[in-house]
Amino acid sequence: MSAAAPTDSAGSTDAAHSMDGASLPREGRLRAVIENLTPCVDGGRFAAKRTLGDEVAVQADVFADGHDALCALLLYRHEGEEHWQRTPMRSLGNDRWQASFRVARLGLWHYRVEGWVDALETWRIDLLKKQAAGQELGIDLARGAQLAEAAAARARINHAADDAALLQHWARSLDDAASPLEERLQRSQDAALHALARTHPPPEALARSALLALMVERERARYSTWYEMFPRSAALSREAHGSFADCEQLLPYVAQMGFDVLYLPPIHPIGHAERRGPNNRPVAAAGDPGSPWAIGAAEGGHKSIHPQLGSLEDFRRLLARAAQLNLELALDIAFQCSPDHPYVREHPEWFLKRPDGSIQYAENPPKKYQDIYPFDFGCSDWRELWLELASIFEFWVDQGVRIFRVDNPHTKPFALWEWLIARVRRRCPEAVFLAEAFTRPKVMYRLAKLGFSQSYTYFAWRNGSQELRAYFEELRTPPVSDFFRPNLWPNTPDILTEYLQFGGRAAFMVRLVLAATLGASYGIYGPPFELMEHQARDPGSEEYLDSEKYQIRCWNRERPDSLRDFIALLNRIRRDNPALHSDEGLRFHAIDNPALIAYSKRSIDGTDRILMIVNLDPHHAQSGWVSLEGALPQGPSAGAGAGAGAGDGDGADAAGAFQAHDLLSGARFLWKGERNYVALDPATSPAHILRIRRRIRSERDFDYYL
Amino acid sequence: MSAAAPTDSAGSTDAAHSMDGASLPREGRLRAVIENLTPCVDGGRFAAKRTLGDEVAVQADVFADGHDALCALLLYRHEGEEHWQRTPMRSLGNDRWQASFRVARLGLWHYRVEGWVDALETWRIDLLKKQAAGQELGIDLARGAQLAEAAAARARINHAADDAALLQHWARSLDDAASPLEERLQRSQDAALHALARTHPPPEALARSALLALMVERERARYSTWYEMFPRSAALSREAHGSFADCEQLLPYVAQMGFDVLYLPPIHPIGHAERRGPNNRPVAAAGDPGSPWAIGAAEGGHKSIHPQLGSLEDFRRLLARAAQLNLELALDIAFQCSPDHPYVREHPEWFLKRPDGSIQYAENPPKKYQDIYPFDFGCSDWRELWLELASIFEFWVDQGVRIFRVDNPHTKPFALWEWLIARVRRRCPEAVFLAEAFTRPKVMYRLAKLGFSQSYTYFAWRNGSQELRAYFEELRTPPVSDFFRPNLWPNTPDILTEYLQFGGRAAFMVRLVLAATLGASYGIYGPPFELMEHQARDPGSEEYLDSEKYQIRCWNRERPDSLRDFIALLNRIRRDNPALHSDEGLRFHAIDNPALIAYSKRSIDGTDRILMIVNLDPHHAQSGWVSLEGALPQGPSAGAGAGAGAGDGDGADAAGAFQAHDLLSGARFLWKGERNYVALDPATSPAHILRIRRRIRSERDFDYYL
Repeated sequence: MSAAAPTDSAGSTDAAHSMDGASLPREGRLRAVIENLTPCVDGGRFAAKRTLGDEVAVQADVFADGHDALCALLLYRHEGEEHWQRTPMRSLGNDRWQASFRVARLGLWHYRVEGWVDALETWRIDLLKKQAAGQELGIDLARGAQLAEAAAARARINHAADDAALLQHWARSLDDAASPLEERLQRSQDAALHALARTHPPPEALARSALLALMVERERARYSTWYEMFPRSAALSREAHGSFADCEQLLPYVAQMGFDVLYLPPIHPIGHAERRGPNNRPVAAAGDPGSPWAIGAAEGGHKSIHPQLGSLEDFRRLLARAAQLNLELALDIAFQCSPDHPYVREHPEWFLKRPDGSIQYAENPPKKYQDIYPFDFGCSDWRELWLELASIFEFWVDQGVRIFRVDNPHTKPFALWEWLIARVRRRCPEAVFLAEAFTRPKVMYRLAKLGFSQSYTYFAWRNGSQELRAYFEELRTPPVSDFFRPNLWPNTPDILTEYLQFGGRAAFMVRLVLAATLGASYGIYGPPFELMEHQARDPGSEEYLDSEKYQIRCWNRERPDSLRDFIALLNRIRRDNPALHSDEGLRFHAIDNPALIAYSKRSIDGTDRILMIVNLDPHHAQSGWVSLEGALPQGPSAGAGAGAGAGDGDGADAAGAFQAHDLLSGARFLWKGERNYVALDPATSPAHILRIRRRIRSERDFDYYL
Repeated sequence: MSAAAPTDSAGSTDAAHSMDGASLPREGRLRAVIENLTPCVDGGRFAAKRTLGDEVAVQADVFADGHDALCALLLYRHEGEEHWQRTPMRSLGNDRWQASFRVARLGLWHYRVEGWVDALETWRIDLLKKQAAGQELGIDLARGAQLAEAAAARARINHAADDAALLQHWARSLDDAASPLEERLQRSQDAALHALARTHPPPEALARSALLALMVERERARYSTWYEMFPRSAALSREAHGSFADCEQLLPYVAQMGFDVLYLPPIHPIGHAERRGPNNRPVAAAGDPGSPWAIGAAEGGHKSIHPQLGSLEDFRRLLARAAQLNLELALDIAFQCSPDHPYVREHPEWFLKRPDGSIQYAENPPKKYQDIYPFDFGCSDWRELWLELASIFEFWVDQGVRIFRVDNPHTKPFALWEWLIARVRRRCPEAVFLAEAFTRPKVMYRLAKLGFSQSYTYFAWRNGSQELRAYFEELRTPPVSDFFRPNLWPNTPDILTEYLQFGGRAAFMVRLVLAATLGASYGIYGPPFELMEHQARDPGSEEYLDSEKYQIRCWNRERPDSLRDFIALLNRIRRDNPALHSDEGLRFHAIDNPALIAYSKRSIDGTDRILMIVNLDPHHAQSGWVSLEGALPQGPSAGAGAGAGAGDGDGADAAGAFQAHDLLSGARFLWKGERNYVALDPATSPAHILRIRRRIRSERDFDYYL
């Protein structure tokens, strides 16, 4: 077989055809063609994304001229494996074929499709038709013997002596005029022998698709719950600068809310030159801590820790304690330097020199950011610079960090990230990368394509039902869903939206429910979120007043009105419901009031169905009629045969009554049919998270989905 | 420049990036990326199609990290040209860029996009912002001098001494502290010098897309009107076998109906062995002429002419006479042989031998077609076979034939056609190929992609408004519209649809109007069509009774009820209205009666607008309200600035009154607003073909679009 299908070539046999009529193609007997292989990102330029344990469904159009039977194979292997796995594809009709494979190993996988016209199978089928028509079959059986003979010859070439012997014997038995026709016809249909022959396809007839790549990451790349916190505000008294030790004390607080990622803004020494004061005042007073993103000082740079936070020792202990609570630490990597960064002294060639000899600070004319020196990625020493930047990730990976939130990746070359992420993954396949890019759509998609595991989104600014639906339908549709994994943040240290500024408690609850249920990954910046901070620095600004970016804050995390319990409930619901662990099963439902939005999520196996209905108006009670087509589960009574078995709601159950169990309030509504009435008052709860529990037709007892 | 952008490579610089983090990319300073280049068929595997004189609009996403200014160029050239033409692309917003070029030469063109971060342009823009903010600019001007200096250096490398001198002088003048700031600022904005600098982009920063191909054919490939006719039925008395001389007599009949392609079924000698009789009876009586598709006899094969039709001389004369009437002859090329074909004797190796030594006839089990021997494209002598088959086209090209209708191309290898069509086009760029494939959708699309100019479609079986709309919206949407040019046939010698069998005269008129207006190319099989033949051979069959495929027919072409005048009128309307010369401007309109269908076509320049409304029910009068959004033209009063200027109907004119002038009946309806009432009685005319003539608001006089 390996002789028949050399697996080292990445090119598609098909695409290799010469298109100028001058020269004949290499092989004219190649009749099968392969088109439209999926998943596929930008024609194979980038790897599609999946997570560990996923069943990867591959589809392709495989067809040939005429009406002969075809055989199509899916080939796949992990980059670390030498041999290809092969699995036959099954026809879905309309020349579309499918097969799937389970990815049980992290890292890069490759797959391709092979197809060819199967002469033996064509002959087998024709023989049945002729038999049914009562035609004379002697010559056809002899023809089959010739084909089996040829298969035997190919087996010999493939050094499969046993196969050759079996096929050879088959050929003789088909042609054996001595034995009764009935027997020979039976042999002609021998499934095992046909399958054996298929393992030795004629090389001259074998079409091969291009080789496509698949990046397999761990589940947290797909399903994660983030909490962002400034460690320096972890101390319990305003006077003190928080430390990693203080953070340890807060781990239970974070864990109890049900988060699994604790994300810390940069923990490195902070520059003194041009340091900013509270509320980003141009000049800092003595004792002002400065911005953690002004990285680098005499004490060190991106591989050092701000002395007041503690030692590397302390950091590793925090990491360990967090792990005990199923919390992973995520570090913030920002490729920029304060004027005091050691790089500036040791590698001036990495920065742009101005004509006056000074180093070019960050600018967005007319704005100037003298406290930040950007790297000059156009410098001739770019190779050394890249290697050093990669070594920053590698350093923290070696400390045990597995998740990185990358600051403004869209202001550094795409090629750097593609190379760097691949390099770090090669060292640590568990590494997860979140792109903090709030920029143009195509730039955000490009960053996701080239390797970032997750991306920030425009979610924070999508408040209406139409814009939410349009945006998330775009994100959940291939190919976007094959490379872009949204991570939804209702707030960040840079983003306090108008909606949160003026919507009161309900606004925070609404945005939280949306983030936690629209996205398999979401995060909040706390304590400002759970404490509902809503004061902007200036009117029309999205900056927090007294932002932690420039000063230390002391939070009363025990405030009775805190949303912490609501957050904990939401995250428990997320954990308990597989439907919320992926964005695949997201589907929106019509509702006749634009102030309301309705959508459901289904687990891949279809057993878990959750319906969300959210009142987007934080000020008024709203009500409407929701249509549940597709959201209604099938009961045991409904035959699996029914199309609705796939959960696509052919309305089989529409007539029946069922329970809509609100996992937020605990209330259970008895609903009937596809259209049902909902009313949501933001003063009490602005949202339903409903598990649909079907009721058996017999009025006597209930049967709940679990 | 050529040094900066070697044009021999077809690979995209972008796609060349290594994806394993092991090795650094060749060039890390390449920041711009190019994505989603259009037109593009299967990622560039196939050429997109255009026709001579077209303005080809190319678009691409071109962007980079950060916010620097970008420059994007479109490069294009005919395969026969050595040097690339370059034209700057303009930004459409959202990182989408566009430029266009006119294809004034037949054959294969290539195009690609180049893009890079334009440091000088970035600097120019920033300078303006800083100036507006009243910042000190000395250092920035010096920086600009450095950038101009670098551009001068690149010009030198590109052996452009004059450019270098100009840029050098520019650099000095920017840095010249002696001259007043005002002056230096003015120089910084010098458009000509910036443009000059852009012609010498930094090679290390130049991103290059893959090379894409475009096949440019003559207008008839896009816009053609076909009439199919059996020459052997051209005689005026039943007794005689028609000849090319008889055909000459019929040319005016065909030309007067307004056709520009006269298509003849195979004109070659017909086999005697296994010849079929009338109505496909298995055995022919003496004198039965047999099927023209049973090609080959003692007199010759695919390069010979059936003696009773005449000589090669006669054929060439027919060709010339037809040309005088602006009629082109299309030949039917069917790659199959009768048992009497010379190939069978001379090249038995091209046919499949059965175990009993006989040659395998065509089969579709349990059906047998003993009168047809298919070629064995799997034979080891496939190269010789291919070259001979190509020589058949070349032979007829040398006789002056420029249009070929290819019989059942879907039962021959795709690779054969891709090679053969390219080869014939190389010899004769005017050659047009129509694929007679009625098979699975993806097979039909594949044939179009690999080079067929036009394709038969499912039109004959699409009778309802929804299925017609769905099908033609699929065909008119890229990428399908970039490679698939539909040719619509209401009937063929193989297809007498149920709709025509039982719909009466109105049915023929309906299908004719649909074909002639939905498709820029359409054809009919006559005289059966204009004489409304509707007798099927058997109930449920689509075969004509007494089909010309198996016998000679004598037609009374002067029958008073003939549709010839209606056909002539339709084809005149087609010729007079550029909107009907292409399928680009096709758009469907809502109408509240499913028995009616409404669609409009616009000429590319938007000046010609035609609205079709057809009653699909041949038995009853139907009426309804049609919505004309997008179909209403703008009057001189409406500024070109208005979005509706592009004809996308923002309803600017919706309030106004206008005329709907029926080009079929001559009737003029005074309509008002976007919704108007229509009623169509199949007993009189089942369709409107309306030119929308806008009325000026002043009630006094009319101003018509011409």
